Amino acid sequence: MELGMVGLGRMGGAMTARLLAGGHRVTVFDLDPKAVEAARGRGAGAADSLEDLVSKLAPPRAVWVMAPAGDVTERIIATLAGALSPGDAVIDGGNADYRDSMRRAADLTERGIDFLDSGTSGGIWGLEGGYSLMVGGPTETFARLEPIFQTLAPSPTTGYGRVGPAGAGHFTKMVHNGVEYGLMQAYAEGFQMLKAKEEFGLEVDKIAQIWRFGSVVRSWLLDLTAQALEEDPELADIAAYVEDSGEGRWTVREAADLGVPAPILTQSLYERFRSRQENSYADRVLAAMRNKFGGHAVKAAEKG
Amino acid sequence: MELGMVGLGRMGGAMTARLLAGGHRVTVFDLDPKAVEAARGRGAGAADSLEDLVSKLAPPRAVWVMAPAGDVTERIIATLAGALSPGDAVIDGGNADYRDSMRRAADLTERGIDFLDSGTSGGIWGLEGGYSLMVGGPTETFARLEPIFQTLAPSPTTGYGRVGPAGAGHFTKMVHNGVEYGLMQAYAEGFQMLKAKEEFGLEVDKIAQIWRFGSVVRSWLLDLTAQALEEDPELADIAAYVEDSGEGRWTVREAADLGVPAPILTQSLYERFRSRQENSYADRVLAAMRNKFGGHAVKAAEKG
Repeated sequence: MELGMVGLGRMGGAMTARLLAGGHRVTVFDLDPKAVEAARGRGAGAADSLEDLVSKLAPPRAVWVMAPAGDVTERIIATLAGALSPGDAVIDGGNADYRDSMRRAADLTERGIDFLDSGTSGGIWGLEGGYSLMVGGPTETFARLEPIFQTLAPSPTTGYGRVGPAGAGHFTKMVHNGVEYGLMQAYAEGFQMLKAKEEFGLEVDKIAQIWRFGSVVRSWLLDLTAQALEEDPELADIAAYVEDSGEGRWTVREAADLGVPAPILTQSLYERFRSRQENSYADRVLAAMRNKFGGHAVKAAEKG
Repeated sequence: MELGMVGLGRMGGAMTARLLAGGHRVTVFDLDPKAVEAARGRGAGAADSLEDLVSKLAPPRAVWVMAPAGDVTERIIATLAGALSPGDAVIDGGNADYRDSMRRAADLTERGIDFLDSGTSGGIWGLEGGYSLMVGGPTETFARLEPIFQTLAPSPTTGYGRVGPAGAGHFTKMVHNGVEYGLMQAYAEGFQMLKAKEEFGLEVDKIAQIWRFGSVVRSWLLDLTAQALEEDPELADIAAYVEDSGEGRWTVREAADLGVPAPILTQSLYERFRSRQENSYADRVLAAMRNKFGGHAVKAAEKG
């Protein structure tokens, strides 16, 4: 098929490469000339603006948006809404808040433009192995654009599907990332315990390798962890500082909205917040209280 | 090699079959005649007692114990300690508390009997795919018995290894199971959130299948979960009641002993406890307090 790709970052660039390799005709737009040049080198057409991109596609058009969630995606979709024609389609493959996707779907539908929200998992490995794609939107639109998903997925029959109406794709991806936080934290705590048991002198890299084969905890995340531990079991050059990128927070917010307990997904997010704290106020409150009621010694703060 | 196998339960029976298929000579002992008969049918020899088992093996003997942790394993190893000779070896492949294994190793070593603790993961699928084996004990003993591990493992070069001195095998397996609790709970919470979002009518079985290919959360546990959800997405015939089998508690105890935070592993265990509560006292205390300070209605307990 023919499609436009907006956003050639880590994900969008690799997806463009996979689509081109799969025989699709892709016209790209990105503000970074180097990313555009790389896509052109793989056979993509290039546009100077979103309007130019639209003019270079034949109707009914399909434009895949792969941009950071929030304002950037908002502006791109608003511009596309003005430039596209009835019968065209926009696919947001980023990590948008599913409530934004529901709103955008309603706005575009009013203009006769179809919208699909495609939660996309696979990270930098997707180029080679394919992406897992959770798609929300009208059945007909999904069916029409299915060849795109079949190429991006690990195979034409696995790893992709329509999961429900507009918003359902990004909702499912949000929960996927919530689960991901929990899985990662579980491994992290386990390896930390192994490391802490100094009397056994456990080689965590070796144990990760053992667990990869035949164990109940084998997984792709464990494969990646084993690679990292093989490079350096001490992880000495990696700061103990963990970012979060939105979906974890949305998952916790959604659990609260639904009134459904998600203690592990919630705590896994909080552990990331914890990793970013230095000299936490809560810890100082605790230390101050222990001092007041029990006369426990307080460790003086180092003066800068 | 020649070895004795004590305990032909779900795990021991399958391991015997895998060892026999791998060309080892196995003599078995179990109190269940049916399990013994099944092993004989696969080519195993059989013994009437632990002493008989020992008498049927040629020194230096190797006896694999695959029994429930605690008293049963304790009695078996005590009996073997009396019946075996210096130079023989006992392998405990069960889920013993690593501190028991350290003690048993010391006792047996005093008698000149070698001891290995082999944490064994793989469940009922190990017969076909092989087991993940985390072994503690002397390097020489491990090297001598390595052909056994090579047959039980997924391949002669993967999924097994000596991780440290006596106790280190069961310690590593304990942490493995702690991690397993956390992974399971993360998936459980995720699928519960998908199910709770009724407006999207999400098909959790379909989503599990999508996630299996190309996603960051793909794993063997997800494969099994997808199977269960395919059989019945409602899981209607499964009680919402989750047992724990020791290692999860030991992991939490160990985290406290080490002074190492393991919030996810801990909370995952507590969620299992929670699943077994009906009419929890804590919930009644909370409801009573809300009533006292805010006049919130209390739901009357149903009288039996």
